[in-house]
Amino acid sequence: MFISFEGTEGVGKSTLIQKIHAHFEQLGREVVLTREPGGTPLAERIRDLLLAVNHDERMCADTELLLVYAARSQHLSQVILPALQQGKIVLSDRFCDASFAYQVMGRGLDAAKLELLNQNFVSSMPNITFWLDAPIELGMSRARVRGELDRFEQEKLEFFTRVREGYRILHEKNPERMIRLDATQSAQHVFEQAMQALLTM
Amino acid sequence: MFISFEGTEGVGKSTLIQKIHAHFEQLGREVVLTREPGGTPLAERIRDLLLAVNHDERMCADTELLLVYAARSQHLSQVILPALQQGKIVLSDRFCDASFAYQVMGRGLDAAKLELLNQNFVSSMPNITFWLDAPIELGMSRARVRGELDRFEQEKLEFFTRVREGYRILHEKNPERMIRLDATQSAQHVFEQAMQALLTM
Repeated sequence: MFISFEGTEGVGKSTLIQKIHAHFEQLGREVVLTREPGGTPLAERIRDLLLAVNHDERMCADTELLLVYAARSQHLSQVILPALQQGKIVLSDRFCDASFAYQVMGRGLDAAKLELLNQNFVSSMPNITFWLDAPIELGMSRARVRGELDRFEQEKLEFFTRVREGYRILHEKNPERMIRLDATQSAQHVFEQAMQALLTM
Repeated sequence: MFISFEGTEGVGKSTLIQKIHAHFEQLGREVVLTREPGGTPLAERIRDLLLAVNHDERMCADTELLLVYAARSQHLSQVILPALQQGKIVLSDRFCDASFAYQVMGRGLDAAKLELLNQNFVSSMPNITFWLDAPIELGMSRARVRGELDRFEQEKLEFFTRVREGYRILHEKNPERMIRLDATQSAQHVFEQAMQALLTM
């Protein structure tokens, strides 16, 4: 089983992942915790390039998209696919949906470019995706408490409003795979909503 | 004018580029010397990832291809297109043809994947491409003299034989753009062949 977790900054993805991880481990299941961009040493180096704030050179939107997919194909081939083949549960903090939300809706890239990368470079999609949804202001204030902001976190409210709208569109298009969780609720309540959804799958 | 230089390792691309650069500068033309993968600070960091020998993790072929195109789209948007718009001559040590030769022919990737990246992420192709062709053994012995071998240079003879065959196929398909230069000849002779081709363009 492959589960991804999506949402804008500070909506509580990490907390939910930890709780679901603990739950499956208690049941004796092998769980692989991973994240995007990243998940392998090489993909994490690509993540560093993506998140670094560089005042000398603007990263163009195509470059950002292609770096995300370079990291993703390494992550898929080295971590996700082998784990799934071994019957493990994969919990990934972000996956393909994030590219629609951030690169297409956030940056304004052509959705056809993304579609083409998905069709040609992504061989496995999550069985279920938890979208943690909350007003942008709430998440941003949580993210800012964490310290220095990365290249994405430095974006303005309008950017994240488009990202959130991206997730809403994806949720509408993929009702069977994507579960919206109300991330304004307590972490325990969000976890219970998620478990409920897993049980009725 | 956008000129690219292609060929397997050690065929004398750098020497030819220097000579053509000097020639155009003598004529008072502004010339931008650049290379792939690389050509901008960020693209050079992607180059470092591509060339690094990593014994802990195999870079999958899709990742390699996508990293090359991430670097290329940054290079195009930040260096090549602005220079061409300013009427400068761009001399690039490698460009798209290298991806067919190395990633498709060398690594065995599907040519359709490359075609799709070219169509969607490459907005400008060279006006002329010099393919420096020599038997693989000759170039490899030259490259080995330079010191430690990068991830590509460590490949075996069969890999480079496929790469050379890739360039031969491209040359056959693009006779108007690609000029084959006999790189077994002296550097001066290769330069004169190249100038001859430029004059008859």
